[in-house]
Amino acid sequence: MKIYSILRSKTAMMIIDQTLLPLQEKRIEIKDYRQMIEAIKALRIRGAPAIGLAAAGAAWLASMEFEKDSNFKEKLLQAIAEIELSRPTAVNLFHALNGVKEIIAKTKEEELVFAIYEYLDSLFHYEYDSSKAMAQNGFDYIPKEYTRFLTHCNTGALATYGFGTALGVIGRIAEERQIKVYADETRPLLQGARLTMWELQKMGIPAVLISDNMAAHTIKEHKIDCIIAGADRICKNGDTANKIGTMNLAILADYFKIPFYIAAPESTIDRELDNGSLIKIEERNKAEVRQFGGQQTAPVECDVFNPAFDVSPAHLIKAIITEKKVYEYPYKF
Amino acid sequence: MKIYSILRSKTAMMIIDQTLLPLQEKRIEIKDYRQMIEAIKALRIRGAPAIGLAAAGAAWLASMEFEKDSNFKEKLLQAIAEIELSRPTAVNLFHALNGVKEIIAKTKEEELVFAIYEYLDSLFHYEYDSSKAMAQNGFDYIPKEYTRFLTHCNTGALATYGFGTALGVIGRIAEERQIKVYADETRPLLQGARLTMWELQKMGIPAVLISDNMAAHTIKEHKIDCIIAGADRICKNGDTANKIGTMNLAILADYFKIPFYIAAPESTIDRELDNGSLIKIEERNKAEVRQFGGQQTAPVECDVFNPAFDVSPAHLIKAIITEKKVYEYPYKF
Repeated sequence: MKIYSILRSKTAMMIIDQTLLPLQEKRIEIKDYRQMIEAIKALRIRGAPAIGLAAAGAAWLASMEFEKDSNFKEKLLQAIAEIELSRPTAVNLFHALNGVKEIIAKTKEEELVFAIYEYLDSLFHYEYDSSKAMAQNGFDYIPKEYTRFLTHCNTGALATYGFGTALGVIGRIAEERQIKVYADETRPLLQGARLTMWELQKMGIPAVLISDNMAAHTIKEHKIDCIIAGADRICKNGDTANKIGTMNLAILADYFKIPFYIAAPESTIDRELDNGSLIKIEERNKAEVRQFGGQQTAPVECDVFNPAFDVSPAHLIKAIITEKKVYEYPYKF
Repeated sequence: MKIYSILRSKTAMMIIDQTLLPLQEKRIEIKDYRQMIEAIKALRIRGAPAIGLAAAGAAWLASMEFEKDSNFKEKLLQAIAEIELSRPTAVNLFHALNGVKEIIAKTKEEELVFAIYEYLDSLFHYEYDSSKAMAQNGFDYIPKEYTRFLTHCNTGALATYGFGTALGVIGRIAEERQIKVYADETRPLLQGARLTMWELQKMGIPAVLISDNMAAHTIKEHKIDCIIAGADRICKNGDTANKIGTMNLAILADYFKIPFYIAAPESTIDRELDNGSLIKIEERNKAEVRQFGGQQTAPVECDVFNPAFDVSPAHLIKAIITEKKVYEYPYKF
C-alpha cells in the first residue's frame, strides 16, 4: 500500500499523525495554519521534505483565511513568520516559505491564493518525481543479486512525499525481486522501530527489527549484502552527516567488506562545506537517553551525551545516490 | 561507596533487588530458599558469579530449614534440585550447587549446616579475592595515561561479589587517577543505563551515558583511550562471546586504533572450544526489542532478531585480563 505522509485537497491539508505510529494510524485534516504549526512542533509531521510541504501548505491555508481581509498580504506575511518559528532548524521549511514570499511579492492579491496553491502543487510534484528518480537510480546501480539490506532511522514515504530516500530505493528494488530488510531501531527516538517497520509492513516487504547494537552480529550471521542510509548534509568531499549511529554502520560495512550507500536529494549536497570536520553536531535533550516513553531508565541526574548526528567519512561510502545520478568515491561534486 | 550485590549473615542472606534499580535501592533479607529461587527467577539477582553465590546461599538456607527433620539429606537434595531449575542456563549456579552436593555426600548430618556455611563463605572469599586480583592485573597492565574509558553492559559489583570484572578494573584505576567512563545503555535490557550508571555514581566516578549507536561518534569526539568489556565465554583461540553489542565495539576500536580489552575470570576460558564459530548464540524473546518497559514501540507483530550475545574475533582483542594474568593476542591458553 502506498503511504502518504501529507496530502492536499482543494480546501485542506491532510497528514498522518506520526506521533501515534505504529500503534494507531490516524489521519488529521488540517484547515487552519495554526493547527499545522502545532503539528510541526509536536512532530506529528517530520522529515525534511515533508516539513517543507507542511510549511507551504500552512501558508496556503493562511492565504485562504486572510483573502477577504483589507490587509491581506500583511496578515499573510505575519502568518508565515509564525510558521517559520515552528521548527527553526529545518532548512526545507525556509526554502518552501521563501518560495511563498517570492510569490507574494510578485502576485496581485486577487490571484494570490491560486498562485500559492499552484506553487504548493509544484512542490508536491517535485518531491514525488525526485524521490521516484532517486529510487530508480538506486535500483539501476545496486547489484541485482543483493537481497538483504540493512537500514537506519526512517527515510521512507513518511519523511518525504512519494517514495523516500534510502527506503525509497529499497522499495523500488522490492518491486522487482524478493528481498528482506533489517531495520535498526535507532535510539534514542526509535524512528526505525516505530516508523520504518510500520512502512515496511504497509509495503508488504519482509522486515526484521534489531537493536542498533545487533548490527555487527546481524551482518555476519544473516549475510547482509549492503547497507543504505539517508543523509542530512553531504560535504563537498563526500563526508556525510546523518542520524546518530550511521557512522557505526559505515565502519561495520568497511570491516565486513560490504558496500555502504547513501541515498539523498541533490539539495543535501553542500558544496560550500569542504569536509565533515566543519559540521557542528547538535546535542539534544539528555532526557531522551535517560528515559523511554516517559519512563526513567537511568539514574535521574546522570550525565548523558546525546548527539543528534554523526559524520561518516567519505572513504567509507561506496556511492551516493541522488535523483540526478549516482556518485562514487572519491567524490567530486 | 562499596556495593555488595549479595551478603550472608549467620542466619540469612541479603540481596539488592536489581529489578528496582536505579530508581529504588532496596535490600531484601532472604531466610527461605524458596524466596531465593524467586529472586533468581525474577532477576532480582543476576550476573554469573552472583548467581553462584545466591544458589549456594539458598542451599545453606534449606540446610538450616531441614536440619531437624528425619530425612534431612533427602529433603536438602530435593531443595537443591528446585534451586537448579531457577536459572537452567547459568553455569556458575551448577558449579556452586555441585560443590554443595559433594559436601552432602561426604559430611555427617550433624555437621552439614556448618560445612555448607563454610563452603559458602569460601565461595564469597574466592569471588572477592579473584575480582580484586583481576582489577589489580588490569590496573598494572593498562597504560597510566589512559583516562577515558568506554564500557558495555554491567560488569561491576552488582554482577559479582567484590569488584566486578571490566568495571572492577575501571574502579581500581579510578582509585589512583581522575578518569571518565562512558557507558553504553546496552539495549535491549539496558543494563548499562540501569546498573552500570548507578554503580559508577555510587563509586563517585564521573560517568556519561550514551545510546549504543553513539559509540563511534563518542570515541571520535570525546577521545576515548580504550574500551573494556566482560565475557561470557572465551574460546581456546581467544574468540570471546559477550553481551550483544560487544563485537560492534571491538570493530570500532580497531577502526579508531584504540585498544579493546576483555576482563573475565579464568573460569570463563573454555579450552575445549577451538573458536567462536562453535558457539551457539541464544535468541531471546522478540518482545524485548519490540517493547520497552511494557510499552510497545514497534508494530505489534513485527519480526525481530534478538541475539543475546555476539562473538568478538580474537584478533580484535588486544588483551584478556583474568585474576591470574594478562594474556595478549595471539592467545595461547
